[in-house]
Amino acid sequence: MFNTIMEKVQAKTPLVHSITNYVTVNDCANIILASGGSPIMADDINEVDDITSICSSLVINIGTLNERTIKSMAAAGKKANKLGHPVVFDPVGAGASQLRNATAAMLLKEVKFSVIRGNISEINFLASGSSNTQGVDASATEAVTAANIESVITLAKAFAQTTGAVIAISGATDIVADSGRSYIIKNGHPMMSRVTGSGCMLTAVIGSYIGANSDKILEATAAAVAAMGFCGELAYEKLGELNGGTSTYRMLLIDYMSKLNAQTLKDGAKIEIR
Amino acid sequence: MFNTIMEKVQAKTPLVHSITNYVTVNDCANIILASGGSPIMADDINEVDDITSICSSLVINIGTLNERTIKSMAAAGKKANKLGHPVVFDPVGAGASQLRNATAAMLLKEVKFSVIRGNISEINFLASGSSNTQGVDASATEAVTAANIESVITLAKAFAQTTGAVIAISGATDIVADSGRSYIIKNGHPMMSRVTGSGCMLTAVIGSYIGANSDKILEATAAAVAAMGFCGELAYEKLGELNGGTSTYRMLLIDYMSKLNAQTLKDGAKIEIR
Amino acid sequence: MFNTIMEKVQAKTPLVHSITNYVTVNDCANIILASGGSPIMADDINEVDDITSICSSLVINIGTLNERTIKSMAAAGKKANKLGHPVVFDPVGAGASQLRNATAAMLLKEVKFSVIRGNISEINFLASGSSNTQGVDASATEAVTAANIESVITLAKAFAQTTGAVIAISGATDIVADSGRSYIIKNGHPMMSRVTGSGCMLTAVIGSYIGANSDKILEATAAAVAAMGFCGELAYEKLGELNGGTSTYRMLLIDYMSKLNAQTLKDGAKIEIR
Repeated sequence: MFNTIMEKVQAKTPLVHSITNYVTVNDCANIILASGGSPIMADDINEVDDITSICSSLVINIGTLNERTIKSMAAAGKKANKLGHPVVFDPVGAGASQLRNATAAMLLKEVKFSVIRGNISEINFLASGSSNTQGVDASATEAVTAANIESVITLAKAFAQTTGAVIAISGATDIVADSGRSYIIKNGHPMMSRVTGSGCMLTAVIGSYIGANSDKILEATAAAVAAMGFCGELAYEKLGELNGGTSTYRMLLIDYMSKLNAQTLKDGAKIEIR
Repeated sequence: MFNTIMEKVQAKTPLVHSITNYVTVNDCANIILASGGSPIMADDINEVDDITSICSSLVINIGTLNERTIKSMAAAGKKANKLGHPVVFDPVGAGASQLRNATAAMLLKEVKFSVIRGNISEINFLASGSSNTQGVDASATEAVTAANIESVITLAKAFAQTTGAVIAISGATDIVADSGRSYIIKNGHPMMSRVTGSGCMLTAVIGSYIGANSDKILEATAAAVAAMGFCGELAYEKLGELNGGTSTYRMLLIDYMSKLNAQTLKDGAKIEIR
Repeated sequence: MFNTIMEKVQAKTPLVHSITNYVTVNDCANIILASGGSPIMADDINEVDDITSICSSLVINIGTLNERTIKSMAAAGKKANKLGHPVVFDPVGAGASQLRNATAAMLLKEVKFSVIRGNISEINFLASGSSNTQGVDASATEAVTAANIESVITLAKAFAQTTGAVIAISGATDIVADSGRSYIIKNGHPMMSRVTGSGCMLTAVIGSYIGANSDKILEATAAAVAAMGFCGELAYEKLGELNGGTSTYRMLLIDYMSKLNAQTLKDGAKIEIR
């Protein structure tokens, strides 16, 4: 499966329109490029329609939302819907402020998302209206564990049912589900949580993968999640050799994405289908 | 002293709300994380109150201020004051434009800062209303030297007296003072001035340290200054081995912050108390 | 020639005012510093006049333009013109949206540029009003080749004649021309196109070089283009040793700029004058 998905990304070089936060935007652009896509960041209300029109997919990330860009997110999302382009949503910090909550609710109402990716606290909040969100990181009390994984899968499938989107929940174990099927992905490394933007970067890679595989959103999302996690493992191995810290690790994450191919991903992916 | 301060950062993982410039924001977020804190960047006037409320400290940096974010800075600062959260101010480029000068003056009036950190030109300007500010770097004619260090300490203590804030002046020799005591810190390396944002990063680390040590603002600020400078020394040593340039050096700065512990800092800190 | 140009940058440390996109702004600031200049990013309409006044040159890059910053670009450009400061324009994505097209046209009308740097698609669009712009990267169908280089040079000279600016067209072969002379520069490496912002960084370095050589805009621009391309070659060599990917490559680009001197550039530059 992954072979075809990655090959299509390489073959099509999908243009990915991103309206994202200014904290991790450079990493997101570079990892889109590394993954085989081509990034365009544009957030003025007067150009989002034009830019989305020439792209293959749209990424909306509310990490540093503001009054001006919220309008652009909604407009770009609607335009992408009209054109049939896949749209991925990263509800960074949902639960942490009224503005984020209201914006996420508005976007979920106005835009039909193909994929929603967040940590368990963010997805919990969107799905149930409550969570223990602590800033932009997942709450420890909500971590996905062997004990609660079945209920998390149930949550993901139910939220997929409600929204029509593929739901990707990031954590030590990643879950990617639509209303019927789910993938359990055990790639990744705890070091990834010590880099600002590893979640945003994953969302960006999903944007790239679904841009070239709009007919296989669930598989493409699972492939992107496995790819990012596998790069996290490779980066950690190399980090030991280099005796580096968190900033070297960030660089290695993007490095490995730029060097990944379908065969190495196939060998490295730890995926279970339920 | 430093043992306790660093241990508290590690133990509490303080959430640090930052309203900062878009040039160095990624480095600031990553170094907050590396130092043991957890960064949240949020600058919309409609969410700064909520975000500041769930955080332990607030960083205000005017590096790329604009009409919209200036209001958010004031609002967040007032809210943090109301909640008793420590607030650190980085008056980037104070003296370089009327807008920066007026904004710094407004913020000093509206917000009670726990720490003000800048280079000597910026602090000179804030304290006396005049300086030889050359853009965002310190003017060479104002460098802190053996010859003028006593007068710089006097300036720092007087400005601490006026503002009620701990004053941190960065340079070849760093000075951290409240109205009564001062620390002279001789850590650091000239290479740090060849990286954009080494000052912003220090301010971010101060935000992290004071977030976990709000009862010891002076000591926590001194510890952060020594930590950053010591990382600058370690990074320079390693840079020689790697035969790298300024961008490798930037990465190493954050790397070493992520690897620092209380014992190595204690051994490496070059601090004198006056 | 290059000896004098680089020496002047080192000697003068020109302050470079940049109004640029938030995607690559950190790389731009760091490479200005690495090249011997000093960066100031400032985009509020209420301070651009002040900031431009204390600087030696101005960089305008429309990569993530918005309604607010477009006004600041025009104001800063006019002020720099009044003061006789050189101004370089990077029309990122010209041709990709009506807003970019209208903004580029407005800026070309309101501001007298010293240098305009873009890829062939962007320059084609500005010069002739049509192109095959695909997002922010050059269209493959428009690549500069041995077969069409003469016509590209003719285009560059004609557009230089119309605008009074030096025209720099980036690609596998770079062309730098005024209305009378042209430089053909064969430095560089294809890997540069796998890093987001290698074009923006080149524009930033041009800003630094012309800031210290406002009497030799054509030569300084050619030197900057050769310098960036040569760093791309050196970085690629080292990348092989390190077995790194695209993110390591980005770091090495800036590293080599920080280590470059007049002699190594003279030895490495592959320039032909026509």
